[in-house]
Amino acid sequence: MLTPSEIKARLRDAAAGVERYLAACLADRGIPARLRASMEYSLNAGGKRVRPVLCLTTAGLFGLPAERVMPFAVAIEMIHTYSLIHDDLPAMDDDDLRRGKPSNHKMFDEATAILAGDGLLTDAFDFMAGVGAGVGVNSGDKCRGTGNGNAAIPAANVLAALRVVARAAGAPGMVGGQALDMEYTGRAGVTLDEMAAMHAMKTGALLRASCLSGALLAGADADAQARIADYGAHIGAAFQIVDDILDEVGDEAEIGKPVGSDAEQGKTTYPSLLGIERSRALARERADAAIERLSPYTGPDADFLRSLASYIVDRAS
Amino acid sequence: MLTPSEIKARLRDAAAGVERYLAACLADRGIPARLRASMEYSLNAGGKRVRPVLCLTTAGLFGLPAERVMPFAVAIEMIHTYSLIHDDLPAMDDDDLRRGKPSNHKMFDEATAILAGDGLLTDAFDFMAGVGAGVGVNSGDKCRGTGNGNAAIPAANVLAALRVVARAAGAPGMVGGQALDMEYTGRAGVTLDEMAAMHAMKTGALLRASCLSGALLAGADADAQARIADYGAHIGAAFQIVDDILDEVGDEAEIGKPVGSDAEQGKTTYPSLLGIERSRALARERADAAIERLSPYTGPDADFLRSLASYIVDRAS
Repeated sequence: MLTPSEIKARLRDAAAGVERYLAACLADRGIPARLRASMEYSLNAGGKRVRPVLCLTTAGLFGLPAERVMPFAVAIEMIHTYSLIHDDLPAMDDDDLRRGKPSNHKMFDEATAILAGDGLLTDAFDFMAGVGAGVGVNSGDKCRGTGNGNAAIPAANVLAALRVVARAAGAPGMVGGQALDMEYTGRAGVTLDEMAAMHAMKTGALLRASCLSGALLAGADADAQARIADYGAHIGAAFQIVDDILDEVGDEAEIGKPVGSDAEQGKTTYPSLLGIERSRALARERADAAIERLSPYTGPDADFLRSLASYIVDRAS
Repeated sequence: MLTPSEIKARLRDAAAGVERYLAACLADRGIPARLRASMEYSLNAGGKRVRPVLCLTTAGLFGLPAERVMPFAVAIEMIHTYSLIHDDLPAMDDDDLRRGKPSNHKMFDEATAILAGDGLLTDAFDFMAGVGAGVGVNSGDKCRGTGNGNAAIPAANVLAALRVVARAAGAPGMVGGQALDMEYTGRAGVTLDEMAAMHAMKTGALLRASCLSGALLAGADADAQARIADYGAHIGAAFQIVDDILDEVGDEAEIGKPVGSDAEQGKTTYPSLLGIERSRALARERADAAIERLSPYTGPDADFLRSLASYIVDRAS
């Protein structure tokens, strides 16, 4: 297992690779200037880049190098970014700030923020499809990374991975989870099962898909797919539980938002239903289950994934 | 060439096939009830279904039967529907009515309308990818139509078609066109070239992609791809020019919206720059160019596509 500072360093390194690619990936696509500025503003606003790093790492675990997966991994970050832009809109969570900076609709305007989200979401699927073989149309731009046919990933693998991401991000997944979150907010009597199912859709599904898509791109077999999907689901749940705990007892300066905001907004949380100690134990259980599912694998990618599961539970922000 | 009433009948028949599939396609996906109701409300609100019919017809022209293409074609209608929902939002065009019924955010609420659009857009890519071979994950639901591997379309074809649709719908296409449309509205001095480029992105790109994607799914060769893409671009332009003309001189009861609304909103239109007669001539030119590009093809699908090009110019609504 890596130490917390080793994990942080590896996360930072991997995130830096993602950010180098992100910075230029919308150039030369013929996007109107203001729209592109709005998309890039949110895309380059920081964040841990956990989702693309997971995708790159699980692909690496099964032998597919990062440079061939990068556009696909970046596409998942584009989808995550679009979801933050739309969630912040006045009609949704109405947040003026995101990571300490004006949210997209405050920096630009509401119409531009809606369109920037729509653009990031749609263009993400162009990026994902672009890593596949047999793409003979509109493949001339610089932002694909798979210029030669030999380096392309088999089209069937790409389709399977893309489909997992679409299902996780769409109405049966993240979009549906946000709808349920809004429905449950302020409602009394939300049960643990309802809340867990909502989080599994809202945040869990895309984390799971980030992991599974990397394995699918690399052509992992059915047993490996199931293990990696479970790993992703477990760390997604652990991540959410710890998020809820930190919202109650975290350090405001470290987590970057006011402590107690969930309770203030009338959200049902793990601590509100289970208390802090049982919530912590549940997060630890899910992290251990994630680690257990990786038992067949060795090497630096597997070590990183195992260490990350523990780090998620032990993190302070 | 078909007579106008023959074209209308064939459009109606083809649209009915699309609507039968549309009616049930969101079932059994685990979408929260209210969100699903909102998505289905707009999806089943009528319309000519021109885009899916174009995709089915160009696929048919190159030998791929409609039942194998249907989920892909329906996905294009889902993308068109999402764009209408988001365009109607208060922050965008702020329309209370769509096809004579309350727009989505009036019938439901703004947050639900944003999410319904996001869900339709994302799920469309799941539907598109689902027609491909080699999909081994999450392929159990009833809404795919390609249950057995033999009937699946080669994954490389599906990826190429999906990518064309993503590029057309995204920030370099439809989303960017909407951004430019809002930027140009109320601005004096918008040139013919600027307006034409905006329309090519906002409405032309998805019509072109509807045609080209069918040909790509069917494995059409490069010459055929270019011909079909040009056909789609020409009819897209003709369609827009006629839309502008009808907005000025059409019959309100037939077009279903007040005449003169473009001028009232401060939009630059073909008639405002060229006058009615030169606009009509330009639409006819584009339709003729579309027809010319189909010269190598015979049979009912080719006849329908040729007749449709003329019908677009001669229509009254």
